[in-house]
Amino acid sequence: MLAYGELLAFDRMAADARLAPDLHRRAMLSEMAAVEITNYRRLAGRLAELGADPQDAMAPFVAGLQAYHDSTEPRDWLEALTKAYVGDGIADDFFREVAAFLTPPDRDLVLEVLHDSRYDEFACEEIRDAIAADPKVANRLSMWARRLVGEGLSQAQRVAGERAALTALILIGTGDAGGIQALFKRLTSAHTARMTAVGLNN
Amino acid sequence: MLAYGELLAFDRMAADARLAPDLHRRAMLSEMAAVEITNYRRLAGRLAELGADPQDAMAPFVAGLQAYHDSTEPRDWLEALTKAYVGDGIADDFFREVAAFLTPPDRDLVLEVLHDSRYDEFACEEIRDAIAADPKVANRLSMWARRLVGEGLSQAQRVAGERAALTALILIGTGDAGGIQALFKRLTSAHTARMTAVGLNN
Repeated sequence: MLAYGELLAFDRMAADARLAPDLHRRAMLSEMAAVEITNYRRLAGRLAELGADPQDAMAPFVAGLQAYHDSTEPRDWLEALTKAYVGDGIADDFFREVAAFLTPPDRDLVLEVLHDSRYDEFACEEIRDAIAADPKVANRLSMWARRLVGEGLSQAQRVAGERAALTALILIGTGDAGGIQALFKRLTSAHTARMTAVGLNN
Repeated sequence: MLAYGELLAFDRMAADARLAPDLHRRAMLSEMAAVEITNYRRLAGRLAELGADPQDAMAPFVAGLQAYHDSTEPRDWLEALTKAYVGDGIADDFFREVAAFLTPPDRDLVLEVLHDSRYDEFACEEIRDAIAADPKVANRLSMWARRLVGEGLSQAQRVAGERAALTALILIGTGDAGGIQALFKRLTSAHTARMTAVGLNN
């Protein structure tokens, strides 16, 4: 799931880079995209080491992740950055939680490929500057972020429903229904903190 | 010129990766694209070190390179690979020739960012396999390659006409009109050898 997520994130961020208002910003988003493909390579390498064909291993996640991206196509530069910041932020938190249930070296690999905070800072600054220049932007991007979360959750439920092994891993890892609730609470709090940090509201 | 070439090649190869017939091949082209952005970063870093704003330094080359890519949009996977193999091959040879006129460390940097032969081998194999499976493919791709060369030359002349400094560098480097002719002859021979290697004809 993470491998295909990286491959698809690469594709979408590379396309979104065309929305950049200048070459400097376009290069920044292109570089963010390139990091994803480096991570993809490491994950695909590990899948092959474990005897899996990366293509077969990714297949069950294609429809759900594709649907998420198709339903959240950014219309402009700020929507693209907000998607990278908010969407990838939640996804990273989720994978970080799941990684805790794995044993090394897989746990370490997952933690290592999660996003570089250098690019988060770039996205944060751009969003903050845009809001400072025009406070109305905050409302529009807050609504956009809510849509990202809604679409993300809806596809996550679909994947979880279809992938018993992933659901079982999370159930066993968290211990019980209370553990799952606590996990979702942590994801939600971190998301709220991220929104607040750039001047967006939940 | 090389910096913007890398940035644009990233963009186009990332988009072309969607033409791949499967996830494995899509990942391969995506990885080829990601290499370009790493190279862009190194070149932009060197431009900044030299006191130039990378965005300003790239501006004169935007129209020509954009026009080349706009007029050579691949329609399928094999056209995309042929473009990466043939087009980047000629561009690399050209930059390698120009690099010889530079002093270190710029010469070394240019030589280092030129393409990784690992990906050339992938493109070669794919093209050869496709021709083996259906010999008619050779004609179609040979025509496509001729178009790539024609469009490339036409844009190169435009850039050279507008960028006296680049033309002067090549003139001084090659010595005289005979030197320039010899340079073009080397580029042509290398291109013919590349075409022959995958079963295409000039």
